[in-house]
Amino acid sequence: MGNVRVGMVGYKFMGKAHSNAYRALPMFFPKTPALPVMKAICGRNAEALEQARSQFGWESAETDWRKLIERSDIDVIDINAPSDAHKEIALAAAAAGKHLFCEKPLALNVADAKEMLDAAEAAGIKHMVGFNYRFAPAVQLAKKLVSDGRLGEIYHFRAVFLQDWIIDPSFPLVWRLQKEVAGSGSHGDLGAHLIDLARFLVGEFDEVIGMSETFIKERPLPSEMTGLSAKGDASGARGKVTVDDATLFMTRFENGALGSFEATRFAAGHRSTNAFEINGSKGSVKFDFERLNELEVYFTDDADDVQGFRRVLATDPAHAYMDAWWPAGHTIGYEHTFTHEMQELMLAIHEDRQPVPNFHDGLRCQEVLEAVEQSITERRWVKLAEYK
Amino acid sequence: MGNVRVGMVGYKFMGKAHSNAYRALPMFFPKTPALPVMKAICGRNAEALEQARSQFGWESAETDWRKLIERSDIDVIDINAPSDAHKEIALAAAAAGKHLFCEKPLALNVADAKEMLDAAEAAGIKHMVGFNYRFAPAVQLAKKLVSDGRLGEIYHFRAVFLQDWIIDPSFPLVWRLQKEVAGSGSHGDLGAHLIDLARFLVGEFDEVIGMSETFIKERPLPSEMTGLSAKGDASGARGKVTVDDATLFMTRFENGALGSFEATRFAAGHRSTNAFEINGSKGSVKFDFERLNELEVYFTDDADDVQGFRRVLATDPAHAYMDAWWPAGHTIGYEHTFTHEMQELMLAIHEDRQPVPNFHDGLRCQEVLEAVEQSITERRWVKLAEYK
Amino acid sequence: MGNVRVGMVGYKFMGKAHSNAYRALPMFFPKTPALPVMKAICGRNAEALEQARSQFGWESAETDWRKLIERSDIDVIDINAPSDAHKEIALAAAAAGKHLFCEKPLALNVADAKEMLDAAEAAGIKHMVGFNYRFAPAVQLAKKLVSDGRLGEIYHFRAVFLQDWIIDPSFPLVWRLQKEVAGSGSHGDLGAHLIDLARFLVGEFDEVIGMSETFIKERPLPSEMTGLSAKGDASGARGKVTVDDATLFMTRFENGALGSFEATRFAAGHRSTNAFEINGSKGSVKFDFERLNELEVYFTDDADDVQGFRRVLATDPAHAYMDAWWPAGHTIGYEHTFTHEMQELMLAIHEDRQPVPNFHDGLRCQEVLEAVEQSITERRWVKLAEYK
Amino acid sequence: MGNVRVGMVGYKFMGKAHSNAYRALPMFFPKTPALPVMKAICGRNAEALEQARSQFGWESAETDWRKLIERSDIDVIDINAPSDAHKEIALAAAAAGKHLFCEKPLALNVADAKEMLDAAEAAGIKHMVGFNYRFAPAVQLAKKLVSDGRLGEIYHFRAVFLQDWIIDPSFPLVWRLQKEVAGSGSHGDLGAHLIDLARFLVGEFDEVIGMSETFIKERPLPSEMTGLSAKGDASGARGKVTVDDATLFMTRFENGALGSFEATRFAAGHRSTNAFEINGSKGSVKFDFERLNELEVYFTDDADDVQGFRRVLATDPAHAYMDAWWPAGHTIGYEHTFTHEMQELMLAIHEDRQPVPNFHDGLRCQEVLEAVEQSITERRWVKLAEYK
Repeated sequence: MGNVRVGMVGYKFMGKAHSNAYRALPMFFPKTPALPVMKAICGRNAEALEQARSQFGWESAETDWRKLIERSDIDVIDINAPSDAHKEIALAAAAAGKHLFCEKPLALNVADAKEMLDAAEAAGIKHMVGFNYRFAPAVQLAKKLVSDGRLGEIYHFRAVFLQDWIIDPSFPLVWRLQKEVAGSGSHGDLGAHLIDLARFLVGEFDEVIGMSETFIKERPLPSEMTGLSAKGDASGARGKVTVDDATLFMTRFENGALGSFEATRFAAGHRSTNAFEINGSKGSVKFDFERLNELEVYFTDDADDVQGFRRVLATDPAHAYMDAWWPAGHTIGYEHTFTHEMQELMLAIHEDRQPVPNFHDGLRCQEVLEAVEQSITERRWVKLAEYK
Repeated sequence: MGNVRVGMVGYKFMGKAHSNAYRALPMFFPKTPALPVMKAICGRNAEALEQARSQFGWESAETDWRKLIERSDIDVIDINAPSDAHKEIALAAAAAGKHLFCEKPLALNVADAKEMLDAAEAAGIKHMVGFNYRFAPAVQLAKKLVSDGRLGEIYHFRAVFLQDWIIDPSFPLVWRLQKEVAGSGSHGDLGAHLIDLARFLVGEFDEVIGMSETFIKERPLPSEMTGLSAKGDASGARGKVTVDDATLFMTRFENGALGSFEATRFAAGHRSTNAFEINGSKGSVKFDFERLNELEVYFTDDADDVQGFRRVLATDPAHAYMDAWWPAGHTIGYEHTFTHEMQELMLAIHEDRQPVPNFHDGLRCQEVLEAVEQSITERRWVKLAEYK
Repeated sequence: MGNVRVGMVGYKFMGKAHSNAYRALPMFFPKTPALPVMKAICGRNAEALEQARSQFGWESAETDWRKLIERSDIDVIDINAPSDAHKEIALAAAAAGKHLFCEKPLALNVADAKEMLDAAEAAGIKHMVGFNYRFAPAVQLAKKLVSDGRLGEIYHFRAVFLQDWIIDPSFPLVWRLQKEVAGSGSHGDLGAHLIDLARFLVGEFDEVIGMSETFIKERPLPSEMTGLSAKGDASGARGKVTVDDATLFMTRFENGALGSFEATRFAAGHRSTNAFEINGSKGSVKFDFERLNELEVYFTDDADDVQGFRRVLATDPAHAYMDAWWPAGHTIGYEHTFTHEMQELMLAIHEDRQPVPNFHDGLRCQEVLEAVEQSITERRWVKLAEYK
Repeated sequence: MGNVRVGMVGYKFMGKAHSNAYRALPMFFPKTPALPVMKAICGRNAEALEQARSQFGWESAETDWRKLIERSDIDVIDINAPSDAHKEIALAAAAAGKHLFCEKPLALNVADAKEMLDAAEAAGIKHMVGFNYRFAPAVQLAKKLVSDGRLGEIYHFRAVFLQDWIIDPSFPLVWRLQKEVAGSGSHGDLGAHLIDLARFLVGEFDEVIGMSETFIKERPLPSEMTGLSAKGDASGARGKVTVDDATLFMTRFENGALGSFEATRFAAGHRSTNAFEINGSKGSVKFDFERLNELEVYFTDDADDVQGFRRVLATDPAHAYMDAWWPAGHTIGYEHTFTHEMQELMLAIHEDRQPVPNFHDGLRCQEVLEAVEQSITERRWVKLAEYK
């Protein structure tokens, strides 16, 4: 059994989630043929980094990601630094022959994402992108129903990712609201997940058209930035919000299905409603991340008098991953999706194959994100073929 | 096609519901072989009665129920006066050879209910009791699933009827809170419905034990009594609440199933949650009157990966009564249960058979109500066999 | 108290719903200062018409709508014939000085709708259009919350109208699937309701872009057309579906809110999910017609530890219309929305003012419908200003 | 910062849950002043034990619990062996001056539980009992609302714990179905949790009466026993089920509230529905473990037109423990309740106070369990005072 030695860049929200996944794998999936070794964590603030290292359980720390990449005792680089740092680190790591795990969105734009994929392919490394929602057991069940034809031909996909954490105009201008760091706002942060789920469950996009809005155009400068929470600068200085608060778009998939997407941070009452529905000729499924253990499932061939959406609690042994956790009816949470995700990374490295989703998927997602942005700027339908 | 001429005693909440049912039958169930003719409405307050007559669409009015019974142009007497008036009217009407429809609870006690049943049987009339919830399409579906064995052997029945309309201690002492008029409180008013549903869906009771409480023991005297709403007497005079605010009991059914029942008017937030669940060896069903068009249905033999309660919207053509109303997905309301109930009355009279539920069912329900009361008084399990 | 004498053209699905409303008004809203008199029903098939007349309770019948209009004992003409017949009847009725109630969509296109409005205005009659969903108490509550500013500034409106009644490819080519009769498919039938609700709750549309699809392009010719159900012609002959099975569109409202709309008849498991959500700066509401008595309501200023969507059962006395029906917790159904709608018609005639919604609303809705169609044809954003 | 060295007896379902909690504490609650050190794990099967030790991350293993207790490098003994082993181990550990954590039910009967409490008190150790559901943030919120008087005077508590894992008659006779090992069936396993929640949220029990049933009286002998799953012995040998499949009971609390309880393993479709509702004079709460991140909350003083149960997703910073995990809207799972529970154990040891819940709570729960059993045997109401 060969272990996989991990070096991780970033130690905030995603760094914590990834660390937990690496810690959980040996305990809950002990038969995984390759298990992670938490070699080194990397960040710029030495003090905060040491705190994270100790808290999360990493063997060592590096304040320079270049040094991390140079280390010979690291097999894979896990990048969860802010989006604007992804490319440089990934290119260097690939050049050094390190496998790559990169958080989504893969890059700030299609060109960068393409460059990252090309570099990874040229280097012959494994590359994975962090679309963790694929790894919820209920989403895996949706995928299985689609793949096995149990929903028939797919007609509709509609998805929303609704949050409300910046609805207060006094919430400060954190990095996620600055285009030069985050790339985009709700679109790249939330919409990217929806796009990946759509590709995973329905297929490739043919064309898109979108619209977006920034409802609150100026905000207080933050005194401190971290995760999803922050406080305003005491000085009262304000800055311009340069990303979208909300982005909607419609799509036609290559297989003829119609899609509707909405990502917003201005949906009061929705802390994190990442919800989708698929309608096919033989059935439908509904998912909502706030109840991530559940999938609602409908089949047209149920008996006439008992047709209805079933609330499937995806915690049975028949559901993906669940035999590793607790008895049926005992639910899992958000963080478990990362454990499943990292298992895929370990398995792929062990089996010498590309993980899924990988940089191809990251690039495809980026193309859709960018096509939507272009459709907004140019006020027209944009074909994905324009990106080939 | 023979019509059935109705004389109705009572014109408040139930009188309105019954009138609406008589009006709806010819329009929505035009093929019913016997349709009601709204001959006469009866009450003591001449002015209010005339208002009701005109509003509800009755041909004539009588202020003395004895006169109503004497009329030769009346085939059936519909009794929805307060519970303490049921017996005297029913006995007289039976003696006059009139068919009977009587609201629940049939009587104030088992002895009276027995006397009413005996009189009806002796007179050879048709007799029906107003357990309207049986006639919700979703409840009919539950019955069908049980009867067809699709839920297997029944293990559990649990039911609650939760209301909150008297939770405010300043709500006045309306007739429903006075034992001499109402017979009992939540138990006879709400529990009676649950008992009837249990008998309808599971079977006969073997033994019971209960507990009850009157949380608010004194209330303002009412200035005016009507339906479920009232205002307190300006004088500030108060009277003693002589009925139960809440009654719970457990039962063992003759077929071995276990039952749990709770009726209360002190469940904040529940306007009228009349809900039950049945668990059998092959499946389960759940019903809640606040969503009366729905039945949740579970089958143990669904495929392993898609087991879950189905939310069946019982508005399809496959569901009882629904072809008479609107297209699938277009829901009906509370009042429709009475229309279905009155159709059964019409059909039974036309087909010369007893309607279901009838005074036998009313008596059985009364026996359970009384057995529970006895179990509370004597603090012991009471067998229904003690009432035979 | 002046009564209003009604002549109704059409006697199928909507004719039944309207008839029921006219019957219910005097009983449930007896204090309405003007009540309908069901003078005459009109249709082409004399036999079926007489059956409807008798069943629904109309005084007389006419097989020629021109004769109906000529009658001096008719005050208002209620048009619920197929959409392609609306204009001719409305113009003639207006010319004869009759008030008008017309089912939605008002006309097959903007030009016709405009002509109808102009004629009605010129004739000085009252005119109303049948957007019945406005009249659900839960929708009225949503309106009240928006109007009173309790949701703050509106950011988002998203709505879907999902059905599945034609998902089976063998379902026949009923008139609702033929463009020359129905005008459009899911868009005009279902989307029209969503558009009206959006206008009612959020405001006027600024620009739109849409997409649509006809998934099943040919269907069996029907042997008989009626309501929403039909059987295929035994001959096996097939015809082309000329309307949309599904239409989606996005909008920017004049007040800056973003809107998303989807109407489809291919959403397996959805019999009639007419659902919308509104997100504002101070709160949100959610509505689903399959649970039409409920409105989910969220307020941002709820205490920190108990923030969440409230399930409001809109059956309390505080809710519109509900004091006319049953006690709190006793739900109403689909048909009741028409009763409330017809009360508005009666009140408006009595008070000598235009009902709401009226032909202006019908025209505005038609403009949005047509703008969406144009945006689909021309693959571009279409401004509503192009229709002024 | 003083660490707490743990020795754990048992390594199956609960052993895994506890191990995970000990692993999670330093990472998610790093500021806890005393953190666990996973010193030794103990079990009888050396091979399986070593597998567990390695998988769960314990430093060492012991196959004899007496040796574990003798070790000087252990501060606390965590007992999660089958219920019949609790007492002997606890007494010995207390005698050795070790702090104790014991899974529920504390013992097989009141006498044993009393002996354990007395021994723990005499030894002056800290003692805790494993009622983990108290530690769900949503349950903590319910407690806070009750304690702060925001629900007013409590009238009703009703709770069910519904499972279906043994509904198949061919499911084998695992230890949980054998009275001599498990003490009781659904009552001790599931009912114990409900009783503890009732005591936590409402208060002490005054009197109880119960009923129970064993629906399937004989089952195949198991070939292997583990957690909640097992396979039948190939030989076809069968044994008698000696515990209850379902137990229901009613209670009157000392404060006058009425309680209803049901625990069953025969509720088809319910994998693990641990649900309760509390109704008070000012509001109500509802909880269901299958959606453990949610609490439904109702307040009587909400504005008239927006009264309704709020679905509170207890993942906000205002909710207990949640600042340690993920951003608002990102849910946690079953296992997290144990992490919170073990934090209480660590804090109590550090602060030199008894943890809550402790052996007093375990004993009180045992008294109620036994009073219910006695009430079943003797078919009468049993006062808890009989146990003082």
